[in-house]
Amino acid sequence: MATDIEISAMRRALDAARATARTLPNPRVGCVLLSPDGKELAIGAHRGAGTPHAEVDALEQAGEAARGATAVVTLEPCNHTGTTGPCTKALIDAGVARVVFAQIDPNRTASGGTKTLKAAGIDVESGPLAAEATDLNEEWTFAMTAGRPFVTWKYAATLDGLSAAPDGTSKWITSEEARRDVQVFRAEADAIVAGTGAVLADDPRLTVRDAKDLPLPFDRQPLRVVVGETKIPNYYRVFDRVAPTLLIQSRDPEVVMQKLVENNIRHIWLEGGPRLAGAFWNAGVIDRIIGYIAPAMLGSGRAALEGEATTLADLRPITIDDLTMVGPDIRMIGTPGRMQREDFD
Amino acid sequence: MATDIEISAMRRALDAARATARTLPNPRVGCVLLSPDGKELAIGAHRGAGTPHAEVDALEQAGEAARGATAVVTLEPCNHTGTTGPCTKALIDAGVARVVFAQIDPNRTASGGTKTLKAAGIDVESGPLAAEATDLNEEWTFAMTAGRPFVTWKYAATLDGLSAAPDGTSKWITSEEARRDVQVFRAEADAIVAGTGAVLADDPRLTVRDAKDLPLPFDRQPLRVVVGETKIPNYYRVFDRVAPTLLIQSRDPEVVMQKLVENNIRHIWLEGGPRLAGAFWNAGVIDRIIGYIAPAMLGSGRAALEGEATTLADLRPITIDDLTMVGPDIRMIGTPGRMQREDFD
Ligand SMILES: NC(=O)c1ccc[n+]([C@@H]2O[C@H](COP(=O)([O-])OP(=O)(O)OC[C@H]3O[C@@H](n4cnc5c(N)ncnc54)[C@H](OP(=O)(O)O)[C@@H]3O)[C@@H](O)[C@H]2O)c1
Ligand SMILES: NC(=O)c1ccc[n+]([C@@H]2O[C@H](COP(=O)([O-])OP(=O)(O)OC[C@H]3O[C@@H](n4cnc5c(N)ncnc54)[C@H](OP(=O)(O)O)[C@@H]3O)[C@@H](O)[C@H]2O)c1
Repeated sequence: MATDIEISAMRRALDAARATARTLPNPRVGCVLLSPDGKELAIGAHRGAGTPHAEVDALEQAGEAARGATAVVTLEPCNHTGTTGPCTKALIDAGVARVVFAQIDPNRTASGGTKTLKAAGIDVESGPLAAEATDLNEEWTFAMTAGRPFVTWKYAATLDGLSAAPDGTSKWITSEEARRDVQVFRAEADAIVAGTGAVLADDPRLTVRDAKDLPLPFDRQPLRVVVGETKIPNYYRVFDRVAPTLLIQSRDPEVVMQKLVENNIRHIWLEGGPRLAGAFWNAGVIDRIIGYIAPAMLGSGRAALEGEATTLADLRPITIDDLTMVGPDIRMIGTPGRMQREDFD
Repeated sequence: MATDIEISAMRRALDAARATARTLPNPRVGCVLLSPDGKELAIGAHRGAGTPHAEVDALEQAGEAARGATAVVTLEPCNHTGTTGPCTKALIDAGVARVVFAQIDPNRTASGGTKTLKAAGIDVESGPLAAEATDLNEEWTFAMTAGRPFVTWKYAATLDGLSAAPDGTSKWITSEEARRDVQVFRAEADAIVAGTGAVLADDPRLTVRDAKDLPLPFDRQPLRVVVGETKIPNYYRVFDRVAPTLLIQSRDPEVVMQKLVENNIRHIWLEGGPRLAGAFWNAGVIDRIIGYIAPAMLGSGRAALEGEATTLADLRPITIDDLTMVGPDIRMIGTPGRMQREDFD
């Protein structure tokens, strides 16, 4: 059993992990080192690929004091050599006596940490605050388990579900506030995906920008991904030097996913347009929907989603997780249910 | 100036008016009679066409005690002979000394009450709680002022704005709770309007029913109105004996409005379908929107609104007055703004 002191240390480890900016393709992880009498020796966090893991960050701060200590970590210590060495080895070498972790590592390559630690005579305890720890890395956990990136589809539409007028005009249906809100979410994804149609129509930047509309540094930008067979002329903004860009010249969502996996992408922000969103919708690979709904109606135009449905049994339920106003617009965050057709199988 | 005692009597008169069931084509009106020392002598309300007006209801209860009293009424006393005699005459005959009313009568035929009362030597005061009194009869006031019925358009759609699948199936997109909620609103309108398309597709009853799905009595049912040139076979439920039905064999919203005015209709509940709603939308005669949005997406199908728009300047803003959950569905109540195109004139 984890002690009360360890559980409260786990909360601090979770807070340390939460405080970090996006760490994808790696998970957010926090670690607190406790002395045998329960005092906090160090608090560490992982800050993204190429930087030390949370355990190593904490061990480096504690130095010799780590001998005989308890390591409280939000994720099961990794057991494999990636860009950094395995954390299990670092913990064993530092002479840690006990390890308490929250989430079990869902990553098949990195897991096995518990076994290695136990074999070295370290007392291992797992489970406290596992749900909070898993929430912290929801998209990463999904990607590790499902073998494909988590997909958040963002759309902007009128109350009657339209995202462009019949003549193609669509800028800006939603408000300045909604567009700022989008930036906060975009920064959490490690790829921003759009179809050639949306890119050619709107010439979007697909970058993460601050309140002054200035882009984050290149190495903090998600990968920009353009999907479709049409060639985009090189003067389009998606080719500027602000962020990296990947072209996927295919229309098969499975091929797109495969390319994204190869590029270590865990969480994509699918910006549309309606045909690409429709293709993902039909393939059943939309995991979260963030809709910005403008308080306006158009009466006719392009739908925000161009999927395939024949009859009412094709209706797919969406669990509404959050419904709020962002400036004048309604923001809906939802989780699509399983495809009904599967239920009929 | 109205006294505190009169203002508090006005609140009771408003409550009495609010407590009545639909009185359309007449307004809801309440009246409190106060003795010269401020005691309540009687409280009256109008209960619908053919029944006494609120003032007469109160005067009848007070009898001789009304002499020298103050009548506190939510609406300016009427001055014309309709199915009942003018209230001004009743007040004068009863020997009332003072009249305090809230809303000025917007009805050109019935107005002039203040002048008549003053000419008879009665002290008249107007204005206290006028906003509350006007709210009470929002749709009636609109109809009196605009010379056409107030139009509430109700629709049910998915989050992607669709109200039927491509094969026409549409029952039931929204929940049992939403359908019950509709009944409460329907009961407030004095006509329920649908196009021939919706009637032929769904064979709706277009009646007001209670929680057990039993219809209200015939004389409490709104008028059912079917709009369009196609003949509806007589075995359709819209022709059952539960409620009166009017066929308007035209496609011109102006002609439809004219026919409704001739039938003394003040507030219509426009149920669709999408083409008829689109025609009203294009004509700029939708005054309130009540949308039930199911937490689901379809991907393709019939839009809830089939209006005309060319470019983004045709976007019409909607003020969201209320956004709430009704069972699993989102209910949005909104007021359409003026047509943008007019702003460009
Ligand atoms: N309001 C919003 O949220 C929002 C967001 C984005 C765009 N838009 C609007 O949407 C409109 C553009 O619509 P769109 O549908 O052309 O954009 P789109 O969905 O971005 O692009 C369509 C293109 O995507 C490619 N594609 C890749 N996989 C596909 C698949 N499985 N099925 C079909 N196509 C696939 C195809 O390109 P190839 O033909 O090159 O193979 C197709 O032509 C513009 O008016 C834009 O302003 C609105
Ligand atoms: N979810 C909802 O809230 C809801 C509500 C109702 C219906 N629906 C669905 O909507 C579908 C029916 O759609 P619909 O568009 O055919 O129904 P509709 O709008 O009720 O009927 C269309 C018909 O209305 C008549 N009409 C009258 N004035 C018109 C005008 N100015 N412009 C065009 N038409 C005018 C025309 O009839 P004539 O050709 O006879 O002249 C036209 O064919 C069904 O699938 C139904 O289930 C959904």
